[in-house]
Amino acid sequence: MERYIFGVDVGGTTVKLGLFGEKGNLLDKWEIPTVKADGGAAILPHVAESILTKMAEKGIGEQELAGIGVGVPGAVDERGTLVGGAVNIGWKPFNIPEALQAYIKVTVKAVNDANAAAFGEMWQGGGKGANNLVAVTLGTGVGGGIVIDGRIVTGAVGAAGEIGHIHLEDGETEACGCGNKGCLEQYASATGIARLARRRLAQDGAPSILREGEVSAKSVFDGVKAGDKIAIEIATQFGAYLGKGLAVVAAVVNPEIFVIGGGVSKAGEILLSFVKPAFAQYAFPACRETGFALAELGNDAGIYGAAGIILL
Amino acid sequence: MERYIFGVDVGGTTVKLGLFGEKGNLLDKWEIPTVKADGGAAILPHVAESILTKMAEKGIGEQELAGIGVGVPGAVDERGTLVGGAVNIGWKPFNIPEALQAYIKVTVKAVNDANAAAFGEMWQGGGKGANNLVAVTLGTGVGGGIVIDGRIVTGAVGAAGEIGHIHLEDGETEACGCGNKGCLEQYASATGIARLARRRLAQDGAPSILREGEVSAKSVFDGVKAGDKIAIEIATQFGAYLGKGLAVVAAVVNPEIFVIGGGVSKAGEILLSFVKPAFAQYAFPACRETGFALAELGNDAGIYGAAGIILL
Repeated sequence: MERYIFGVDVGGTTVKLGLFGEKGNLLDKWEIPTVKADGGAAILPHVAESILTKMAEKGIGEQELAGIGVGVPGAVDERGTLVGGAVNIGWKPFNIPEALQAYIKVTVKAVNDANAAAFGEMWQGGGKGANNLVAVTLGTGVGGGIVIDGRIVTGAVGAAGEIGHIHLEDGETEACGCGNKGCLEQYASATGIARLARRRLAQDGAPSILREGEVSAKSVFDGVKAGDKIAIEIATQFGAYLGKGLAVVAAVVNPEIFVIGGGVSKAGEILLSFVKPAFAQYAFPACRETGFALAELGNDAGIYGAAGIILL
Repeated sequence: MERYIFGVDVGGTTVKLGLFGEKGNLLDKWEIPTVKADGGAAILPHVAESILTKMAEKGIGEQELAGIGVGVPGAVDERGTLVGGAVNIGWKPFNIPEALQAYIKVTVKAVNDANAAAFGEMWQGGGKGANNLVAVTLGTGVGGGIVIDGRIVTGAVGAAGEIGHIHLEDGETEACGCGNKGCLEQYASATGIARLARRRLAQDGAPSILREGEVSAKSVFDGVKAGDKIAIEIATQFGAYLGKGLAVVAAVVNPEIFVIGGGVSKAGEILLSFVKPAFAQYAFPACRETGFALAELGNDAGIYGAAGIILL
């Protein structure tokens, strides 16, 4: 009998859902809106309803379900309890498996969404085959997910993998979103790269195509591809920070591979060419051969990872 | 039937051995010299002989043995193979359990010695009761051992926990033992603290009791206890580096507690008073409450940890 898994990724505006076969093959995916009203009380009932509808549509019985994995935007403990709630969808702390099992009596596991994405990339994406991996998400912020010996590392209070908040720059004067100054996120996120660019452009009047439109992480890497010297300078600075930060991560957990995802990674392989030399310069010698790959699952990493933890 | 465990810690000059009860109580401990001649060929036979002699002496039969744990100064994989050899005792790569089982037919597990010490402190020392812990050894160098969910983290090439080689100082001109510049070890090891002290003393002619004898980590902390201003300045600098380095470690693995051991930690609680404020300054907010404790097992941490892995 073929068995099925649902992977659910609860986000701030939509909930992504995926139906997977037991080999990890994505059979179907869809989205439903995240209804945040009333402390997000309707979110899980909607998820359950959507899954039950899909099961009816595909003729899948409860006994054919291996389980449901749920990724949520907050810290989750081993038993699936959202320990500190999830501010951006209004959830207070509660046990996610118990809540969902009120609607569907199957195995339910819950996990932090960044960790789910990391696990997804290990299971079916850029880190396929690796057992020790660090997934790095370069988006509005810099997130991280750490998988050691095939298991997601959550840490004592769910803060493992907060690599965006590694302190790197003593001279920083502006504050990071976390309140500290000089965090990796301030230089390697999309907003961080744009900030590096604005700072560089304000420094002098050197000509650059970056002066023509709005400055963003994308315009910087587009500039790099067009051979713009100032853009290359900015990307080099970005790469130095990220390479140095990941060298630190390597000295702590020594992964086989770093998988780089998030919006900024859409720049492609050229992004890695700025990160790898800095990494090699700062890494402990035994870690210098650590692999680098781009994430492959994009926005689907979360549903893949949520489904994947069911097969752990 | 009471069961027994032997914990073995193979060092460069002596092999430490301990006989434990199954509750982790140390019943007896002793040492034998490490015979490095001939590529260290005699070391394991000597260990086996010493264990068999102890068993005869105590009237312990093979069936009463739960196993033998061995800590060695090199990277060890999951199957107990010393993957890169152990330079300072002359060992080439080989499988340690197989080699020891040629003499005693019981469960044998092998582990890196720094990791064994970390595990020992978690099991019976300063981190007792913690499931996620980072042990920091401040000795000639700075070593680390990482335990997550009760398991030792070794990393892809056995380099996990190399926290002494976290890059912290861009302005450093001297090289670390690893070849890089600006590693944590250059400021937080016994030699690093002495170097910070010599640099500070050379800076001006400010009076200090440190000018009276030989400068060492011990003399710096003795100076601190005596209220010497320059010594306090140096200890503050040391604390800033170590606190910043451990804040980075916390953002990666988010342990419940840091357990600080090694020769430098003999300074006592006063050492932590220099590390904690810097840690709090640089730590990701959710990690600020991470605990700090001094190691409790001293030189016995290795035999405790080696024995402890048998009961995993």
